[in-house]
Amino acid sequence: MQTHKHLSDIGVIGLGVMGKNLALNIIDNGYRVAAFDLDSRKVTAAENQAKAEVTEREQLLFGCNNLTDLMANLATPRILLLSIPAGTAVDAVCQSLLDAGIEHEDIVIDTGNSLWTDTIAREQRYRDQFIFFSSAVSGGEVGARFGPSLMPSGDIKAWERVAPIWRAIAAKVDGDTGLPLERFEPGNPVTQGEPCTAYIGPAGSGHYVKMVHNGIEYADMQLICEAYHLLSQVLGFDAYAIARVFERWNTGVLSSYLMEISAEVLRQQDPLSDKPLVEMILDKAGQKGTGLWTAVSSLQIGCPAPTIAEAVYARAISTQKVLRQSLASKLAGPEARDTQSVASDEQQSFIDGLESALYCAKVSCYAQGFQLMAMQAQEQGWLLDFAAIARIWRAGCIIRARFLQSIAAAYDSEPELANLLLADGFASTLSARQQAWRQTVAKAVLAGVPVPCISSALSYYDSYRSETLPANLLQGQRDFFGAHSFERIDQAANERYHLDWSDPKRPLIKLD
Amino acid sequence: MQTHKHLSDIGVIGLGVMGKNLALNIIDNGYRVAAFDLDSRKVTAAENQAKAEVTEREQLLFGCNNLTDLMANLATPRILLLSIPAGTAVDAVCQSLLDAGIEHEDIVIDTGNSLWTDTIAREQRYRDQFIFFSSAVSGGEVGARFGPSLMPSGDIKAWERVAPIWRAIAAKVDGDTGLPLERFEPGNPVTQGEPCTAYIGPAGSGHYVKMVHNGIEYADMQLICEAYHLLSQVLGFDAYAIARVFERWNTGVLSSYLMEISAEVLRQQDPLSDKPLVEMILDKAGQKGTGLWTAVSSLQIGCPAPTIAEAVYARAISTQKVLRQSLASKLAGPEARDTQSVASDEQQSFIDGLESALYCAKVSCYAQGFQLMAMQAQEQGWLLDFAAIARIWRAGCIIRARFLQSIAAAYDSEPELANLLLADGFASTLSARQQAWRQTVAKAVLAGVPVPCISSALSYYDSYRSETLPANLLQGQRDFFGAHSFERIDQAANERYHLDWSDPKRPLIKLD
Repeated sequence: MQTHKHLSDIGVIGLGVMGKNLALNIIDNGYRVAAFDLDSRKVTAAENQAKAEVTEREQLLFGCNNLTDLMANLATPRILLLSIPAGTAVDAVCQSLLDAGIEHEDIVIDTGNSLWTDTIAREQRYRDQFIFFSSAVSGGEVGARFGPSLMPSGDIKAWERVAPIWRAIAAKVDGDTGLPLERFEPGNPVTQGEPCTAYIGPAGSGHYVKMVHNGIEYADMQLICEAYHLLSQVLGFDAYAIARVFERWNTGVLSSYLMEISAEVLRQQDPLSDKPLVEMILDKAGQKGTGLWTAVSSLQIGCPAPTIAEAVYARAISTQKVLRQSLASKLAGPEARDTQSVASDEQQSFIDGLESALYCAKVSCYAQGFQLMAMQAQEQGWLLDFAAIARIWRAGCIIRARFLQSIAAAYDSEPELANLLLADGFASTLSARQQAWRQTVAKAVLAGVPVPCISSALSYYDSYRSETLPANLLQGQRDFFGAHSFERIDQAANERYHLDWSDPKRPLIKLD
Repeated sequence: MQTHKHLSDIGVIGLGVMGKNLALNIIDNGYRVAAFDLDSRKVTAAENQAKAEVTEREQLLFGCNNLTDLMANLATPRILLLSIPAGTAVDAVCQSLLDAGIEHEDIVIDTGNSLWTDTIAREQRYRDQFIFFSSAVSGGEVGARFGPSLMPSGDIKAWERVAPIWRAIAAKVDGDTGLPLERFEPGNPVTQGEPCTAYIGPAGSGHYVKMVHNGIEYADMQLICEAYHLLSQVLGFDAYAIARVFERWNTGVLSSYLMEISAEVLRQQDPLSDKPLVEMILDKAGQKGTGLWTAVSSLQIGCPAPTIAEAVYARAISTQKVLRQSLASKLAGPEARDTQSVASDEQQSFIDGLESALYCAKVSCYAQGFQLMAMQAQEQGWLLDFAAIARIWRAGCIIRARFLQSIAAAYDSEPELANLLLADGFASTLSARQQAWRQTVAKAVLAGVPVPCISSALSYYDSYRSETLPANLLQGQRDFFGAHSFERIDQAANERYHLDWSDPKRPLIKLD
């Protein structure tokens, strides 16, 4: 048994990039960490990095050889942070913790990308043995190290014990401007500002919110890719020219981390070929599941999220490159236009229109994500604070963006907002920019450039502003072939009617 | 115990509209049916209808008081047809059949709208006790009575015993023209032509194929609704005028059951108000789940089916009428155009373009459905005969359409076709019509009329004909924030690279 002079405040299990960086972030904030990984080299590496990066302080990270050691070196009741792959590994470690004598008041925090329904099941399963808590983490490895966005959920009393550490390690924003207070220096954490974490709700809700965050992220990334594709195909811009457009956009309404890094990626020269790196990257996109979970959830609950689904499908189509190559030679498109001939004022007007289109599509896609959370919350009986969720996302996470401040403000003034498009600010901005959005989509469609996300976001906008949709004909079809019945606009809601289409007289029948 | 003079060929359990009509269809074809329902009034009703509709023959439908009676009155080994709601009821009846002494060689055929994975689980669960077989049924109540499209799957030896009855009761088509041989007369079944049934494959595959059929049906219906919406909003046509357009279209490439009944619905006058009925039907569409199952499956397997997903979402948006009414007054659209001012040649050109757009979108949506079946078949190890599936759908089912003959021909000449758009016939037709498709979508977008399905089908077409998609930027973004790595176009496939974006020198690292 290895024991240390001081008991640690928290145990970290799993020292991959995320676990190690969370541990370093925690010690940066003055907490003691007992750390364990099945791979002892990772334990040593974490210890060494802690010494190297936090030299001027006392030792705060203590490597452990096994779970028994880890448990013995923690102050009780214990707090344990799991940073391990989602799925069966989580239950395997929970079982090992039971074997190592975990106690009833101990808290286990799952920080992986677990499926939210698994989290709910685990909270039930381990309820009598220890407190299974969860906290989704967004921000990738850099976020984990210097300030992630954290979405904790589960037992609220557990949260009270976890909160001081979580608030310390989370990303911070300036409360007035809503802008991130970023500092990427070991040993020198940001201690001012509003932390990007807040208790989300009962078990599973934090992972659900993170899942939707990722669904929005998929759509946000694809929207930017479509803008890149249009600038390249319609205006003939190269990667560096597009980087300059994105840099300019990043100073306006589109200001966001994803816009910023997209410009950086486009500006990057390839070390091997001296061409823009992006032109040497194969156009096959990977995915890890949370985007598709979001789309699946939206379908199952009956909440429209077409732009998120289109983003998932866009990645699927990208992977089928061989099929695309075969189809490219068989399917005609519009005649190619000479991009050299586009006059510069026409160029600028296209770029400005595209900026508006991108902004409108982005708002539409956030509206989809927030409505999805609201509908699921109603289904599950969660009381979600959407203003707080928007605030949590202002720094640390991948979709951090200036306009999340406006989303927070919209929910502050109307917490029960059924859809973000109802908020006065967004409604008026989109109304002012919708014409440019339409023109951009029309140009893309006529130019043969696929814009599945920008255009599905517009369909969403146009569908929701349609007081009357053609679903009346659809109900007529369903009644014709399947006797599914329909409601009438001139009769009480829920009164159902069926026309007997097989009778030559076609009588209208009121159903009981 | 009630016994009849002759043992019956098949037992029908569940005498709702579908079960009763299948039973009547079976006796029309000369088979003896023993019929049971928990509700004895339904048994009596079925007996009476059998007597009334098949008067000139001997009694062929024998009502039973309970499952023991039913079992005693069947020739062994028995064939039992279940027509009961999908879900737990199926297992409850299977348990009752076990209690009633069902034997190892007896076949139970589930004809409900079961989820395909449930069917696979049931085939396993009951394997040692009896043969659990399934057959999806399409065509609604009229199809069940006079000729449905039947998609049987499970044990192939069971199929050999079931096949004669299935071929007899299925819808028939003229093999040369591919057109339905329809006759809606009791006691006078169609005995000529190719039956719309064929063995699909192992357990679950038939229900999977039927599920995709329904997903396509959702999209097909929504496409027609979008055309209706455009004719109404852009040209100002009333329901009767649109009925006339649809009737004309129904004589051309768009000829289909859904187009035919849409025209009938639009032509229908409301008995209460004398207005077109469709204008009195509330625009809130219902759904029963198979469409969303299809979209969910496509997301889970990574097969793009955006037009099907958009159709599911369109129904969801339609149900949120209160929200739409609120948004209609807040969100601006394009200025309304005076539809009276559209010149008649402009009208006709819009109608013709829309016909092309609808046809192209329809092909795109069938391409999505067939590719989904192919990808799932590969995943499950099913050998599906897509030409046969297209043939089965030529009559009896809701999506029956003339162009299914062309789909069958495409798969006949190339059974391994990765995507329907690769088939020469479809590739050239779509290439010829894609310009009209684009112009229609552009006009809709500029007019503010939502066309989520027509436009997502076009995005699908344009994405697949793009040899290069902007997923290279997406992979660059993913590598930047998550070290997800990328492949290069100038290096071997599966060699993965990562740029160390945090290092000022940004070295390119080749991963192991």
